[in-house]
Amino acid sequence: MRNLTEENVTEAVLEQIRAKDPRTQQIVTSLIKHLHAFVREVEPTELEWFKGIEFLTRTGHITDEKRQEFILLSDTLGVTILVDAINHRKEEGKTESTVFGPFWVPNALEMENGAHIDRGPENERGAPAVVRGRITDMNGKPIAGAKIDVWQASDDGFYDVQDSNQPEMNLRGIFTSGQNGGYWFRTIRPEAYPIPDDGPVGDMLKATGRHPYRPAHIHFMISAPGYEKLITHIFVEGDKYLESDAVFGVKDSLVVDFKANTSKEEAAGYGFTKTPFYEVEFDFSLKEA
Amino acid sequence: MRNLTEENVTEAVLEQIRAKDPRTQQIVTSLIKHLHAFVREVEPTELEWFKGIEFLTRTGHITDEKRQEFILLSDTLGVTILVDAINHRKEEGKTESTVFGPFWVPNALEMENGAHIDRGPENERGAPAVVRGRITDMNGKPIAGAKIDVWQASDDGFYDVQDSNQPEMNLRGIFTSGQNGGYWFRTIRPEAYPIPDDGPVGDMLKATGRHPYRPAHIHFMISAPGYEKLITHIFVEGDKYLESDAVFGVKDSLVVDFKANTSKEEAAGYGFTKTPFYEVEFDFSLKEA
Repeated sequence: MRNLTEENVTEAVLEQIRAKDPRTQQIVTSLIKHLHAFVREVEPTELEWFKGIEFLTRTGHITDEKRQEFILLSDTLGVTILVDAINHRKEEGKTESTVFGPFWVPNALEMENGAHIDRGPENERGAPAVVRGRITDMNGKPIAGAKIDVWQASDDGFYDVQDSNQPEMNLRGIFTSGQNGGYWFRTIRPEAYPIPDDGPVGDMLKATGRHPYRPAHIHFMISAPGYEKLITHIFVEGDKYLESDAVFGVKDSLVVDFKANTSKEEAAGYGFTKTPFYEVEFDFSLKEA
Repeated sequence: MRNLTEENVTEAVLEQIRAKDPRTQQIVTSLIKHLHAFVREVEPTELEWFKGIEFLTRTGHITDEKRQEFILLSDTLGVTILVDAINHRKEEGKTESTVFGPFWVPNALEMENGAHIDRGPENERGAPAVVRGRITDMNGKPIAGAKIDVWQASDDGFYDVQDSNQPEMNLRGIFTSGQNGGYWFRTIRPEAYPIPDDGPVGDMLKATGRHPYRPAHIHFMISAPGYEKLITHIFVEGDKYLESDAVFGVKDSLVVDFKANTSKEEAAGYGFTKTPFYEVEFDFSLKEA
């Protein structure tokens, strides 16, 4: 088309899209329609448009092997949780999923049930906690041999990969459910922490009056042959950021009580030297694949 | 909000956006609405979502001081020309604008009318051309002293900044209109050329069945005190890419005849040693600021 106007430009662009692959055709067509609708709605000045270009450029330049600012942007705009919700629709009896986040790493240590995933020196540990529960199918039937990959931040709010003071593979572990579907491990009670906010995403949060905090949580990725993989968190009831998670990951069904137990004897039974320690029970139910 | 679902997540995200600056509020709100609408329409798989993240990451990583892949992406999705159209709405009597492109550089040489902007050796030049016309206001009244900043690619399809074989500031010049608003310069007839297509934007063009070519054109940026700056091109009538410019910049009113003249004497009068040479007339009319 050689006479493009404000009125016909969207149609003219769409006419040029002739992908062989129908899914590519669908995605690119929809992207162009919605992108143009956004531009038509806000009518950016040329300076605003250029600031958008600069924002994306900075987001690309700060991204490296250790930091994925585009995922963070997707998270903080609620896109990641929306994609998660679409791909793992809620079903009665199935544990809800939530965002994967950027901090999982492959090949965490395989551990026996009951192991402590904090591998740092005793005195660096936060409030001790015991997490236990069962892996079942959607009817409550135990699943033995499920792999339960767990990861969380330290009480300072950093994952091992962000923090050279932590030993490698700290606060991570892979557990296997027993004959009755049971699992358990020892850890520290997680704390709320800010997502990295010294880059463009942090600037966006500030400009829109938002804080960068995520409520305290422990990540789980649970897989068993014949079942859909479940990626989720458990959140600590009472955390002040449950209502305003910077990445919109909170679901009521995933918020659990971390119950304080002040018994020195019971603490000692778990090898804990501090009280109170915290007890958590959470069962996960998987959907057949 | 601590119970996010597929249904309420867009609303929940929008509730968190509380920018002090009303324009920021408007832009971010609109962006989230349209981005979520896109995701809801195409329902990307998690792998497709991640491919999107990777695409943006590659676009950021290939961008440097010499290459701006996000602008190229904006250009090839028709966003740039839409923003241009919104900011420079068509008006009777005003020359139409088009995309700025990434190849303008500041501080081109100021030249006398009639100068040749090809600074390369005589034998490297393409088909000689003379471009002339007048700068006027929207009523046709001449504007004297307007600055006419001109730039174009060589007959190989490269701008000086892309091509170490060309002298610095080649095929660029800044002219000043005379008392009657007139300007003229000598150059070579431009040729169609591909935009850089060895990166993510090139992949997108291939995946959607598109070529990377822009029809032959000469860039103009014209400014005069009291008038809106005009950024535009003239295109060569007959170019085979006029119907499918990779960046959607073509407007009928900007397509002009490059008229062949076979007279050896007239050519010699311009200092041209080849025939035919090409003659172009184009008047630009500016809007009062």
